[in-house]
Amino acid sequence: MNPSCFTAPASDAPAPRHQPLGGNDMPRFGGIATMMRLPLVSDPATLDVGFLGVPLDIGTSHRAGTRFGPRQIRAESVLLRPYNMATRAAPFDHLRVADLGDIATNPYDLADAVARIEAGLRQVVDAGCRPITLGGDHTITLPILRAITRRHGPVGLIHVDAHADVNDTMFGQKIAHGTTFRRALEEGLIDPRRTVQIGLRGTGYAAEDFDWCRRQGFRVVQVEDCWGRSLAPLMNEVRAQMGAGPVYLSFDIDGVDPSCAPGTGTPEVGGLTVPQALEIVRGAQGLALVGADVVEVSPPYDSGGITALLGANLAYEMLCVMPGAVPPAPQATSSRPQEAV
Amino acid sequence: MNPSCFTAPASDAPAPRHQPLGGNDMPRFGGIATMMRLPLVSDPATLDVGFLGVPLDIGTSHRAGTRFGPRQIRAESVLLRPYNMATRAAPFDHLRVADLGDIATNPYDLADAVARIEAGLRQVVDAGCRPITLGGDHTITLPILRAITRRHGPVGLIHVDAHADVNDTMFGQKIAHGTTFRRALEEGLIDPRRTVQIGLRGTGYAAEDFDWCRRQGFRVVQVEDCWGRSLAPLMNEVRAQMGAGPVYLSFDIDGVDPSCAPGTGTPEVGGLTVPQALEIVRGAQGLALVGADVVEVSPPYDSGGITALLGANLAYEMLCVMPGAVPPAPQATSSRPQEAV
Amino acid sequence: MNPSCFTAPASDAPAPRHQPLGGNDMPRFGGIATMMRLPLVSDPATLDVGFLGVPLDIGTSHRAGTRFGPRQIRAESVLLRPYNMATRAAPFDHLRVADLGDIATNPYDLADAVARIEAGLRQVVDAGCRPITLGGDHTITLPILRAITRRHGPVGLIHVDAHADVNDTMFGQKIAHGTTFRRALEEGLIDPRRTVQIGLRGTGYAAEDFDWCRRQGFRVVQVEDCWGRSLAPLMNEVRAQMGAGPVYLSFDIDGVDPSCAPGTGTPEVGGLTVPQALEIVRGAQGLALVGADVVEVSPPYDSGGITALLGANLAYEMLCVMPGAVPPAPQATSSRPQEAV
Amino acid sequence: MNPSCFTAPASDAPAPRHQPLGGNDMPRFGGIATMMRLPLVSDPATLDVGFLGVPLDIGTSHRAGTRFGPRQIRAESVLLRPYNMATRAAPFDHLRVADLGDIATNPYDLADAVARIEAGLRQVVDAGCRPITLGGDHTITLPILRAITRRHGPVGLIHVDAHADVNDTMFGQKIAHGTTFRRALEEGLIDPRRTVQIGLRGTGYAAEDFDWCRRQGFRVVQVEDCWGRSLAPLMNEVRAQMGAGPVYLSFDIDGVDPSCAPGTGTPEVGGLTVPQALEIVRGAQGLALVGADVVEVSPPYDSGGITALLGANLAYEMLCVMPGAVPPAPQATSSRPQEAV
Amino acid sequence: MNPSCFTAPASDAPAPRHQPLGGNDMPRFGGIATMMRLPLVSDPATLDVGFLGVPLDIGTSHRAGTRFGPRQIRAESVLLRPYNMATRAAPFDHLRVADLGDIATNPYDLADAVARIEAGLRQVVDAGCRPITLGGDHTITLPILRAITRRHGPVGLIHVDAHADVNDTMFGQKIAHGTTFRRALEEGLIDPRRTVQIGLRGTGYAAEDFDWCRRQGFRVVQVEDCWGRSLAPLMNEVRAQMGAGPVYLSFDIDGVDPSCAPGTGTPEVGGLTVPQALEIVRGAQGLALVGADVVEVSPPYDSGGITALLGANLAYEMLCVMPGAVPPAPQATSSRPQEAV
Amino acid sequence: MNPSCFTAPASDAPAPRHQPLGGNDMPRFGGIATMMRLPLVSDPATLDVGFLGVPLDIGTSHRAGTRFGPRQIRAESVLLRPYNMATRAAPFDHLRVADLGDIATNPYDLADAVARIEAGLRQVVDAGCRPITLGGDHTITLPILRAITRRHGPVGLIHVDAHADVNDTMFGQKIAHGTTFRRALEEGLIDPRRTVQIGLRGTGYAAEDFDWCRRQGFRVVQVEDCWGRSLAPLMNEVRAQMGAGPVYLSFDIDGVDPSCAPGTGTPEVGGLTVPQALEIVRGAQGLALVGADVVEVSPPYDSGGITALLGANLAYEMLCVMPGAVPPAPQATSSRPQEAV
Repeated sequence: MNPSCFTAPASDAPAPRHQPLGGNDMPRFGGIATMMRLPLVSDPATLDVGFLGVPLDIGTSHRAGTRFGPRQIRAESVLLRPYNMATRAAPFDHLRVADLGDIATNPYDLADAVARIEAGLRQVVDAGCRPITLGGDHTITLPILRAITRRHGPVGLIHVDAHADVNDTMFGQKIAHGTTFRRALEEGLIDPRRTVQIGLRGTGYAAEDFDWCRRQGFRVVQVEDCWGRSLAPLMNEVRAQMGAGPVYLSFDIDGVDPSCAPGTGTPEVGGLTVPQALEIVRGAQGLALVGADVVEVSPPYDSGGITALLGANLAYEMLCVMPGAVPPAPQATSSRPQEAV
Repeated sequence: MNPSCFTAPASDAPAPRHQPLGGNDMPRFGGIATMMRLPLVSDPATLDVGFLGVPLDIGTSHRAGTRFGPRQIRAESVLLRPYNMATRAAPFDHLRVADLGDIATNPYDLADAVARIEAGLRQVVDAGCRPITLGGDHTITLPILRAITRRHGPVGLIHVDAHADVNDTMFGQKIAHGTTFRRALEEGLIDPRRTVQIGLRGTGYAAEDFDWCRRQGFRVVQVEDCWGRSLAPLMNEVRAQMGAGPVYLSFDIDGVDPSCAPGTGTPEVGGLTVPQALEIVRGAQGLALVGADVVEVSPPYDSGGITALLGANLAYEMLCVMPGAVPPAPQATSSRPQEAV
Repeated sequence: MNPSCFTAPASDAPAPRHQPLGGNDMPRFGGIATMMRLPLVSDPATLDVGFLGVPLDIGTSHRAGTRFGPRQIRAESVLLRPYNMATRAAPFDHLRVADLGDIATNPYDLADAVARIEAGLRQVVDAGCRPITLGGDHTITLPILRAITRRHGPVGLIHVDAHADVNDTMFGQKIAHGTTFRRALEEGLIDPRRTVQIGLRGTGYAAEDFDWCRRQGFRVVQVEDCWGRSLAPLMNEVRAQMGAGPVYLSFDIDGVDPSCAPGTGTPEVGGLTVPQALEIVRGAQGLALVGADVVEVSPPYDSGGITALLGANLAYEMLCVMPGAVPPAPQATSSRPQEAV
Repeated sequence: MNPSCFTAPASDAPAPRHQPLGGNDMPRFGGIATMMRLPLVSDPATLDVGFLGVPLDIGTSHRAGTRFGPRQIRAESVLLRPYNMATRAAPFDHLRVADLGDIATNPYDLADAVARIEAGLRQVVDAGCRPITLGGDHTITLPILRAITRRHGPVGLIHVDAHADVNDTMFGQKIAHGTTFRRALEEGLIDPRRTVQIGLRGTGYAAEDFDWCRRQGFRVVQVEDCWGRSLAPLMNEVRAQMGAGPVYLSFDIDGVDPSCAPGTGTPEVGGLTVPQALEIVRGAQGLALVGADVVEVSPPYDSGGITALLGANLAYEMLCVMPGAVPPAPQATSSRPQEAV
Repeated sequence: MNPSCFTAPASDAPAPRHQPLGGNDMPRFGGIATMMRLPLVSDPATLDVGFLGVPLDIGTSHRAGTRFGPRQIRAESVLLRPYNMATRAAPFDHLRVADLGDIATNPYDLADAVARIEAGLRQVVDAGCRPITLGGDHTITLPILRAITRRHGPVGLIHVDAHADVNDTMFGQKIAHGTTFRRALEEGLIDPRRTVQIGLRGTGYAAEDFDWCRRQGFRVVQVEDCWGRSLAPLMNEVRAQMGAGPVYLSFDIDGVDPSCAPGTGTPEVGGLTVPQALEIVRGAQGLALVGADVVEVSPPYDSGGITALLGANLAYEMLCVMPGAVPPAPQATSSRPQEAV
Repeated sequence: MNPSCFTAPASDAPAPRHQPLGGNDMPRFGGIATMMRLPLVSDPATLDVGFLGVPLDIGTSHRAGTRFGPRQIRAESVLLRPYNMATRAAPFDHLRVADLGDIATNPYDLADAVARIEAGLRQVVDAGCRPITLGGDHTITLPILRAITRRHGPVGLIHVDAHADVNDTMFGQKIAHGTTFRRALEEGLIDPRRTVQIGLRGTGYAAEDFDWCRRQGFRVVQVEDCWGRSLAPLMNEVRAQMGAGPVYLSFDIDGVDPSCAPGTGTPEVGGLTVPQALEIVRGAQGLALVGADVVEVSPPYDSGGITALLGANLAYEMLCVMPGAVPPAPQATSSRPQEAV
């Protein structure tokens, strides 16, 4: 890995469980904007879960700007406190978590950027640290999956998005933010029977755009099937679909409606609601998650930081469902069981 | 028609079915921003459906800015691809569609602007081309209806809006964006028994504001009756109400909630959701639509282009339900029947 | 009271029922931006209900800006007309209502600001005028409750918020926008059995954050229990809980989702919808409301004025449920009974 | 005059010299946003100078939004304190000044709006009150000049602008924001030998655009002649040109560079600097000013309020050079004589 | 050339001199936003000068967004009228000018994008049409120069910028927006003795950053040498330096101060003023200009469109100094000779 | 010092000279946003100069938001490279410099915040590290001066600002952002004969506002004396005034014109230009600077980050004139001597 992606000194060896810097120690508007104001740590081996930024937008087809996604998600994440009031998860009491900084992507050469991302992720994954990656456009999920499956084998995939991202090529290129999951399937990175795509919608070139997915064995849940419904029942089914094998969760912020996530590059109207987005991530509780990402947050198009704030919350909720974040004992006293959401 | 409203050369006579310029031929951020990057065509006789801009805001009572509505809707429409993933409509395979440019409205004289709009629309309508008009404030629907009914006779009206727009006068004037449908009724342009108003809400001067409509025979669906519900059942009823006669669909973007459509002049909180908006337009499938409009998009108050993007999508969805856009054979294989939306 | 908080001359003694300046007398974009373009009145004794601004943000923990809340709520309130199309309330026909201007808060000393707010509110409350206060951060509700309970005794509390605001201290301070209701309880200002908190969510420090409330006897309705539901049934229960005693309604705009209310200081994703917000306020119809507030509107983070517009609407809806706003006769002809919303 | 333009009670007869509400009595972010937080006064006869809003944008050729100019100028004017640190003017110690509110313009009919403006201004001017008008697009200066010259006879004109505004027609209309001064000349409202236009620039249709002015006898100072220079020497010449007769000062904010005044409808690059703008207004000291205006501030296009703040400052500086604002005794102790600015 | 970059029909053969669509034929807010609302023309052989867009930002090192530069410059260019009031140029009376649309750049592969740009420019240049290119990041000037010098031989270069853009590599790449002029020199595209760089400033890595340029023979004019001065004398010297040979003018908008051009990717404080920018372009009058560009306009970071408006004006001024734009007879009656600006 | 203000581990003892993370190691849009992407260091004793944030806005009289100043200045500082192209300073080659993080200010109690700032600064100053502080409102300069003078004795003061900040009280308070320098004088922190205030302007309450300063012996340079001039000659005089004693430089960003620095709380039109601002800081070369600050950057009111970018540049230029930043040997080869700027 390019050493420049880890800028902090390496003396954090016996890593205890880090806690986010609290609002009573430093006002939330103060301090350096790492993810949740966690320490910046260079050695992923000291962590169970690491937040990792991949600033990239040269794989995007319309509006750019996701290169600033990691920085802005971190800036808005300073509002997050450690305890999840809804699910009663207290991830920092059970997991060693920190901010691993950013991968040094190549701003001018997408192929090299992809190689660098894979190399960086390998260091994280091979150290036994599960990455929650802050994108960056959706191109980054391909090298992430390459690094993850090298260790864990093919994964089940929960893919939230407005788009299927299964183009064969875009503008003649094999690698771009709209080809990620076709490449992933071709390379055997994802198990099509354990793949679900949620929130797909909008305009395309032909029915084939989504039907191809179905023919591969993916479950495709178009957004119209989500309108006006809790997605907790769907996630019950998804958990059954995923089983006990390794699972990766890739959340493209444009899966959510533009009113809630205007800061993205290829917005599509009529998207998921934020409660549905939370239900999806919370519904991954109990799965063998080996990694997750939040991608396509584009700060130049955001308004009042609400997209980056949502991205930060989703990344935090991903942490809350990482294996080990919640002790095995059931959340018996929860006022609101997750299934009933 | 004022020739200046059609700026392209006239040599497009044997008009085949135009296709939007695709993202693999020109990146979506490139090219001239016509509607969906369709050709700019000057002769409506070569088209089945024409997108037409009417830049006007001197009929508005509060915030101005809709004069830039057509330009911004076009700018955001570049993201739209030709095929409707939800309804499986492929309108460009069945209809001749292009961008007809803008009507040259008078920026200083509302009466003259209204006359120019009617004259421009007459040329389109009389050529056998059905217009989908991009406003402009809601004043424009009066001259549009005048032109349309001259050819088609009184129309049924599906009117989506936060406001009834049936004031007798505004600031003493007979013509303004809040008097359109009282004038239309008085002039016999709309059939009150075949008129429905959806999304009405907010504050007014008296119960009469909406009760007057009901007394004329309009169906009035206040937004409170829409909250938390699919509007597909309502649209079943609306289709029955409309029957086989000609129908006009007028969609004021302020019918939708300000969170989804902040870029408008007289926003009212608690509006329709975007899925409901799509259900309304998609629910017009099968009707004898003779024209449609999206009005009141005011770019200076928009955020991240989401209002204009919604306007562009609604205009596209209108195209998808224009007679002929979908072949008569039923969409038997659709994963999600439109009625169940 | 500091005389500077009432800037208009005092000669409005025989106060008839003021009416908002209408759009046919002055375009809505014109005129001085008082609340709903009502007269600015200095003597609360001439009013049944007074809109009152408390510009303050030095009690806030993250983003500032609520010091401009009153001014911006007024600026957006100019769109409001006198009659409530949904509930059929015509408050200005039955109540004497005006704008009382702002309290002169101390921008540098929170303790003094709190004292000034209490003194100002006492003048209003002691004159028999029920205040609808435009904040300002949530700190202001403590001195407001002090002034109100001094006259009315402990109140029932309907508290809409993303946060419980029951911290013992913040950054070591007893008074801040996150400690208001713990102080209020300690001081006997609110009756815990007649207290409900709606919309709570997000991240915290421990389960105790909300469980403490429950142990005091508050009803806590986390937002997950609201998702996808009408809150009219909840409000039936709340009315039963409140009974006939005096009730105060405190509405933190961050109770609503950031997509609808981005302009606030500590936004939390997944919040109430605007219809739910309206259901809550409309659901207070029939209670013995002795005052209400809309707080935490922060204009610098707003987008297109939608947060301030929502704040203005909520303040207006509060007026519509103030005792006397609706005559005792039942709203028999309402097309949509409030309970069914 | 339409009585609705003066909303405050009339009991302010023995009008002493009003003072702006000070920052130590009410924080500047608080209180109702009248101009400089002065009292709102209904009787111009009690004033020497009155600030008056004319919200109008239906005379504008490109971007709208100036209908919100008066409101936003007032909102930003709250930062202004009473004493001019540069010129040492203390206008409120010598003149009776207040805010007269807005003229109720017709939003839909430019001719009627123009008539209403003239009628409103007549009431002010005929009462012996000199108006400083906050626009509004530049169309408003025509009816203002009509009202003023009816009392004072033809005036000398200091006209700051990017455009000459001497079109014969615009889109066929005789009245619009680009025809004002041709109409004024034709009607004998301005004395061409006592007319100067400063800051003209940009693109036009022919040399005639500015040469016509010169042939009428106007002095035309194109902006290129201003670049890099103090305008104090120019203003020495202008004062000589104006002599002792009545003078009107019309300041189109687009005379200033878009970097300093982005919030306007027809911006032209390369404009006057703000120091030059201040030199022009300060250079009118000693002239027989009978009125002045600041026009074309369009808040929807502003950034951080800087255009409206500049408009507020210019209006204040106009007040400081109104006859009587500075006592006849010379400012002998001024650290920086105005001429040397 | 990729045919998709020219979208209009080809039937404009006997091209007369096109005129921009005038504001009296179509309001400036209406019509399709081509450059200056000129016709969109597909055959460069019919033109003397063509405006051409190159939407690209994958060569940029910091903020992206210049991919939308051409579209936004066109959108703001609608305010431009045909005649130059300052220089008295009437370019459309003497030259055949139109909008040639955009080059279809590859959004994912910079090398391919560069090849496409060169191919597209060759078609224009080889047809005898001089291009004024609207960028796009500064990478595009390399393939433009390749196309131009293939026909015209090495050119003199007037380069306005905050940065020298002579890095050997950026992030290891030979082609990026900061290496353009080193590559151009290495390839023999520019004549170092006839190269001037104006406006350079800010921070770098070593003195060598600019000294390298000097050693190659470039004239380097750091911005500190421009502060507070007219650049007309400098341009006299530059014209002498350039002599009679072919000259290319490349204007990076970040040469201008961020207050006037905030919408750019790598802003540097303390830049050129807009009058200086205009002096530079106007100072190129009389040179054998074979092409020009305006690059680095990044709309997502713009404010009120002022950067794109400036870009549009600079492109227009470039047109005004293209050979043939002004007839050989001297502008004897000009009120302000260009040299004296 | 509150340990929470230094969040990084302490193992950076033998501190060599840190270098900013370069753009070829990590793209400028990547990495954690410390100041100039320098290491975050906890022990000031290892540094010659430390950048230090003081997030505070509860001392401000109008717009808030400076609590986010340090974070946003850091975010924009990532564009800065190590070498000063204008002055040829290479500060990181000669000084040990890093980011010291933020002081944990109390958001609710200004007096306690001031005490915490003084305590934090004492730790820095007493360790022999010279602080460059990123504000925060101007209140912070009082505790900074207290900490500095405790070690260095009374200082000479170069104070750039729109306001004199010498009020005795504001809203009755002795400590606020407008009283700083009166308190500093009363406490003997600054030497009045070695104090200069540059850029003062705008409106006030009386001539006394600035005359009081003059009577104390301050040199007051109103902005009108700066218009159109290089300030290099002034700085020659200032250096003479300051002599060899310790000097503190306090730069309120509102000293600069709102067009260049819109993101501030109490903007005043007609301010210093950015070249003048740079001349002032560069003109401090050779003085015995013991500390410096950039205050009043308020990100919520900024546009495109230009104010924070200016703040970051000014902080960097302060570093470049810190003693030791430039070796004693004269910059003989400089193309542009600093005095001639």
